[in-house]
Amino acid sequence: MEVVQVLHMNGGMGDTSYAENSLLQRKVISMTKPITDEAITNLYCDTFPTSLTIADLGCSSGPNTLFAVSEIVKVVDEIRRKLGRESPEYQLLLNDLPGNDFNAIFRSLTGFQEKMKKQMGDGFGPCFFAGVPGSFYGRLFHAKSLHFVHSSYSLMWLSQVPEGLDGNKGNIYMASTSPPSVLKAYYRQFQTDFSLFLKCRSEELVAGGRMVLTFLGRRSEDPSSKDCCYIWELLAVALNEMVEEGFIEEEKFDSFNIPQYTPSPFEVESEVQKEGSFTIDRLEVSQVNWNAADDDEVHKCDAFKDSGYNVAKCMRAVAEPLLVSHFGEAIIYEVFSRYTEIAADRMSKEKTEFVNVTVSMTRRECFC
Amino acid sequence: MEVVQVLHMNGGMGDTSYAENSLLQRKVISMTKPITDEAITNLYCDTFPTSLTIADLGCSSGPNTLFAVSEIVKVVDEIRRKLGRESPEYQLLLNDLPGNDFNAIFRSLTGFQEKMKKQMGDGFGPCFFAGVPGSFYGRLFHAKSLHFVHSSYSLMWLSQVPEGLDGNKGNIYMASTSPPSVLKAYYRQFQTDFSLFLKCRSEELVAGGRMVLTFLGRRSEDPSSKDCCYIWELLAVALNEMVEEGFIEEEKFDSFNIPQYTPSPFEVESEVQKEGSFTIDRLEVSQVNWNAADDDEVHKCDAFKDSGYNVAKCMRAVAEPLLVSHFGEAIIYEVFSRYTEIAADRMSKEKTEFVNVTVSMTRRECFC
Repeated sequence: MEVVQVLHMNGGMGDTSYAENSLLQRKVISMTKPITDEAITNLYCDTFPTSLTIADLGCSSGPNTLFAVSEIVKVVDEIRRKLGRESPEYQLLLNDLPGNDFNAIFRSLTGFQEKMKKQMGDGFGPCFFAGVPGSFYGRLFHAKSLHFVHSSYSLMWLSQVPEGLDGNKGNIYMASTSPPSVLKAYYRQFQTDFSLFLKCRSEELVAGGRMVLTFLGRRSEDPSSKDCCYIWELLAVALNEMVEEGFIEEEKFDSFNIPQYTPSPFEVESEVQKEGSFTIDRLEVSQVNWNAADDDEVHKCDAFKDSGYNVAKCMRAVAEPLLVSHFGEAIIYEVFSRYTEIAADRMSKEKTEFVNVTVSMTRRECFC
Repeated sequence: MEVVQVLHMNGGMGDTSYAENSLLQRKVISMTKPITDEAITNLYCDTFPTSLTIADLGCSSGPNTLFAVSEIVKVVDEIRRKLGRESPEYQLLLNDLPGNDFNAIFRSLTGFQEKMKKQMGDGFGPCFFAGVPGSFYGRLFHAKSLHFVHSSYSLMWLSQVPEGLDGNKGNIYMASTSPPSVLKAYYRQFQTDFSLFLKCRSEELVAGGRMVLTFLGRRSEDPSSKDCCYIWELLAVALNEMVEEGFIEEEKFDSFNIPQYTPSPFEVESEVQKEGSFTIDRLEVSQVNWNAADDDEVHKCDAFKDSGYNVAKCMRAVAEPLLVSHFGEAIIYEVFSRYTEIAADRMSKEKTEFVNVTVSMTRRECFC
């Protein structure tokens, strides 16, 4: 469940970014690297631009912030060397909500650039960085200014908690016990948000520009599938217990819902087709354990044994601000004590995975 | 001397920006507004771009940060309305050193944009903002990507303390008692830095792009003229007293120099001509009182009466980090107590002004 640590709260979450460095964020970027590499390779080799503008949406602030863009730049540099071409100038645009710690990113850039120069050798770059604050559910860049857009683990955050969730008693997200109206309300919000996202990016990307997006998603067409909802259901279990024991008012609990949607590949495809500006080059599903270290023999050391604790700690990083703004500070310790036990119990009994949906797209020619 | 409060320390000052909001910074932008307005008007009317990219170099962080760019945008909007044209998209690039508080700027943007929209009415914008961290004595933006560059009260900061200042005993900047070798060392550093600045901007600006720069400068061709050096000489008086009284080691004092150069209009012109990428459209000199409130009848209230105190407070905002990094924390209170008295005494006896040199330039056609 380390994934929750890196969920990027662009939209719907007020003004902050809680994405933190994590083994899992890096793992997901590495897992989807073949798709990203293919997209940037095709883009570069189709046009050999002298200036290449790449945006990372939901860049967060931490040791992973520059990882995605640096991986993309490395691919281009390898190709241009093989082909004996001069390096393009890179313009790397780092976007997140205005509450993100851009100061920390900017202060790390000098060291990062020196390291890159050393790694890449003579003839590389230059790279120009800029921070672009704002929600990606709106325009962020000027028209036809981007060649490549990357976003990992950010787009499942909605711009707001959907309206019409009154019937979702006992739950805090879509769940097997959620009525159809709730599932519909969540889906509608996803459709509205994602189609707006596509429209904005279609205006910002040059014709032939590429976009690779990775969502936390699901395999099943059932929006309340365990694939995506289980992690929140366990938090709902802890909260429900506390309602029963009188720690939390029932009404307060009933009005608490998470502004997230974890789409299926079909739902993603469907919105892309409806919006019409992009052709899909690839649409893939992958999965990763809640505790990413479980996938990795090297990391199976004592520090990672207590998965329940790890998962609860990471979930806390994401959910605490949401919980605090709705319920206040007082319940936090109790919620996460319970959550640790519940998560450890479930993880010992069953395989607990996150599902990633990755879509790679090309901006169609625009005849407007 | 409020000007010192707003001196922007891009280059030479480590990693920070000490520019603060001040009456004077706003006053200087307003004073130079006719020059800026003329430059942006000509630029806009020459090409009517659908997308207009404006960079403010040394934007600082405070209530004045967005003032310069918003004034420029207002001029364009007024013209395009008069001419019945659609608004261009504005890309506003805010540059300062990586230590500047970009988080504060970014968090103020939503409110600022709402205010602008309200003021400007329908059909305005959109405006896209980005923060660009880094020294302007190096490339910051990709090639041919800027239409307009503005910088106010930043470019007198050198990229470093010049080498070869050994003979500058008893002084901390160029002074009437500085030997010619010191004056030459300062001038060489200015030439190196400013020509590098021009070269970088010439690569970044489109042909026909404009640049309006305001330096803290001097009228006289004598680089140790009172025009520019007096404010630092008074600090040197305070420090010299403290050396004599044993508070500060003489050697330590002798190795302390300010990384600033306040050029004459001729020196600015000479570097622009040597570099060769720009034609000068205007080169003007203006002046403003050390205590900017003195110029302004409206502000002649009690709060501004104690000019010595005001000047010392503002000087402290600029000089403290330099002093602390060289001498340590311990001397600061004493230095500025003495400085307050010295400044008050001098200001009561003579007219104390800063001189501004403003240059407006056009990027020549490039046949490379």
